[in-house]
Amino acid sequence: MLNIRHLSQTQLDSYQNLDTPYLCVNKQTFLRNLKYLRTRTEAMGARLRPHFKTVRAAEALQYLLPDKSSPITVSTVKEAEALMEAGYTDVIYAVGISAAKLKRVRDLLLKGQNIRVLADTPEQAEQVNRFCREHQCSVPVLLEIDCDGHRGGIRPEDPGLIETAQLLHTGAADFQGILAHAGESYHCLSPAALRDAAANEVSVALEAAARLQAANIPCEMVSIGSTPTAHNYENLDGITEVRAGVYGFFDLVMTGIGICDLNQIAATVVSTVIGHNHEKGWVFVDAGWMALSGDRGTANQPYDCGYGLVTDETGQLLEGLQVSTVNQEHGIVSMTNGRSLDPDNFPIGSRLHILPNHACATAAMHGQYHVFDTQDETYEVWNRIQGW
Amino acid sequence: MLNIRHLSQTQLDSYQNLDTPYLCVNKQTFLRNLKYLRTRTEAMGARLRPHFKTVRAAEALQYLLPDKSSPITVSTVKEAEALMEAGYTDVIYAVGISAAKLKRVRDLLLKGQNIRVLADTPEQAEQVNRFCREHQCSVPVLLEIDCDGHRGGIRPEDPGLIETAQLLHTGAADFQGILAHAGESYHCLSPAALRDAAANEVSVALEAAARLQAANIPCEMVSIGSTPTAHNYENLDGITEVRAGVYGFFDLVMTGIGICDLNQIAATVVSTVIGHNHEKGWVFVDAGWMALSGDRGTANQPYDCGYGLVTDETGQLLEGLQVSTVNQEHGIVSMTNGRSLDPDNFPIGSRLHILPNHACATAAMHGQYHVFDTQDETYEVWNRIQGW
Repeated sequence: MLNIRHLSQTQLDSYQNLDTPYLCVNKQTFLRNLKYLRTRTEAMGARLRPHFKTVRAAEALQYLLPDKSSPITVSTVKEAEALMEAGYTDVIYAVGISAAKLKRVRDLLLKGQNIRVLADTPEQAEQVNRFCREHQCSVPVLLEIDCDGHRGGIRPEDPGLIETAQLLHTGAADFQGILAHAGESYHCLSPAALRDAAANEVSVALEAAARLQAANIPCEMVSIGSTPTAHNYENLDGITEVRAGVYGFFDLVMTGIGICDLNQIAATVVSTVIGHNHEKGWVFVDAGWMALSGDRGTANQPYDCGYGLVTDETGQLLEGLQVSTVNQEHGIVSMTNGRSLDPDNFPIGSRLHILPNHACATAAMHGQYHVFDTQDETYEVWNRIQGW
Repeated sequence: MLNIRHLSQTQLDSYQNLDTPYLCVNKQTFLRNLKYLRTRTEAMGARLRPHFKTVRAAEALQYLLPDKSSPITVSTVKEAEALMEAGYTDVIYAVGISAAKLKRVRDLLLKGQNIRVLADTPEQAEQVNRFCREHQCSVPVLLEIDCDGHRGGIRPEDPGLIETAQLLHTGAADFQGILAHAGESYHCLSPAALRDAAANEVSVALEAAARLQAANIPCEMVSIGSTPTAHNYENLDGITEVRAGVYGFFDLVMTGIGICDLNQIAATVVSTVIGHNHEKGWVFVDAGWMALSGDRGTANQPYDCGYGLVTDETGQLLEGLQVSTVNQEHGIVSMTNGRSLDPDNFPIGSRLHILPNHACATAAMHGQYHVFDTQDETYEVWNRIQGW
């Protein structure tokens, strides 16, 4: 979060002249978050492959990655195209592939980007092979491994693993390895559960890689990751790389599962008080779901943050306050636990900062991020890459 | 929804060449929805003031409004600025005002737009008066009336009504009348409840107007509306205008409360099947919350549609299917009521259309809408106006 007392006068002018709502990034917090996970991961002998989907701004790439050959993950072909334009060449498109998207993938390969796609069924493997034959190319493919029943992927013991990998290995595609994502780790509620989820992600990925190697199918890449597990690995032997997305901005979901503290949250929504309801103890702000997203990621956590917690402009948490309801351009701030709030403590025109439940979803609502560096005294605008 | 059998070959080529996910609009359905409410409202002697916040595309204005002097509502100053650029001059900015936004409002007034702002507290009235004195202008203001306890506004019997109106009427601002929004009507679950909500919105607005007139404060505008009530007024005597937003696109929330049928939903998200989980009976599509929004507006309705219902490409509802979970770029389609789904019925690469819970939220996730007119055989791209 931002403490406006740490801004230079010029920065403060920028901060105040911006019309609310807007997404404000504390750059030093962001940089610290990036550095922590990179150092931790590299110290264990693996590469860090940040997921671009959270930030999706070309201006952030110089901070996310050491150089243009550094690995990065994307969730859309559009991100990969923007990366190619910026000169970044080592990409995984980590969403299951369908044949229709392979044309744009091939265009990127032709431009020199090493972009890998994801498959977890023989049908997909055959579709990629067919495309490669028909278009005289060799699309790199990873197999998705299911490590925790979260969504897709193949279990290591499933005969489909060898079958699908074999199809790719012997076909026109370029089989490069496996990818696992411990999506269930977002529901962990204790340090022990997090360590177990991290160890499980590692061991399931290693088992899948071993089975492929036993079947004489080379498995060059063993890619794992999720922000919760990435902060909890104890041993990465055999793992080539770790992926994580939300760790740069962090959010209330990550605070709720114990991955970060509130003061590590780098992105907040600046809002203005636009009304009061004295009878109900409500303060209206101009940040509704258009600015915050409708994400309720903390709903099933022990501490439900509504649509976001509230700080003042110095980054001080206003205890007990939360955004309890959102409409398109209205947020209703109220007190939890039935305590009463005096709206007059929040005059019309004053500003409140909202900590996001889910930074990926909140950042996605903003075409620009307003980035303040309290060390270099700079203010920058980052432009989000939009669409698919 | 769209039935691809009704597309011309050229339209079908466009439809198929577009990469998913994308927002697809059946223009004839949209036009029918617009016409119905305009005819109904004007037949009762009131003007229709569509809310731009749902569609937010300049290309749609020629259909939303008869001409450039027609009334329209906005939820952001950015929309009003886009309207000014397109030559539209009769605007209500229907979100409570804070002083910081008045500079841009004044710029619009100077350019010739009649843009009115909204207030419901003496503080706001004083802030607007002060701004007008300091900047030698006269900003038109409406008072927000609370008709159902939904959010903000002043109750007609509240002494604050006359006090605030008087401040504006005698101050430097230009007091023009009142505005009410029956936000609670979204929770109505029977035709009788809808008629009551509509009648109540009318009667509360008329009472507020009468009290102002009794205090010798002219009340030129009496503006009411919400999509549910706008379809249920029986008498609009004394009401000058009706506002509604989602009625052009419609959605599952409106279907759930009985305002429209499924086949009146004009905007759907076209998605591609990108994976299967046979064990769980899941089909993965490439429409997650980035494409659908995370809106769960039907969660508290008798029929909870998850993150959206599913049709095939001919607009045929696939009974029992819904998007049960969303991640950023993944939707999980599953069968409700414990029935089982055979993912192989939905081959990788095939397309499914998702009906949105809340069209305002879903449209907001898309920078472009892909608009098919099955009558004129045209295909157009509409560009959403982004930001604040």
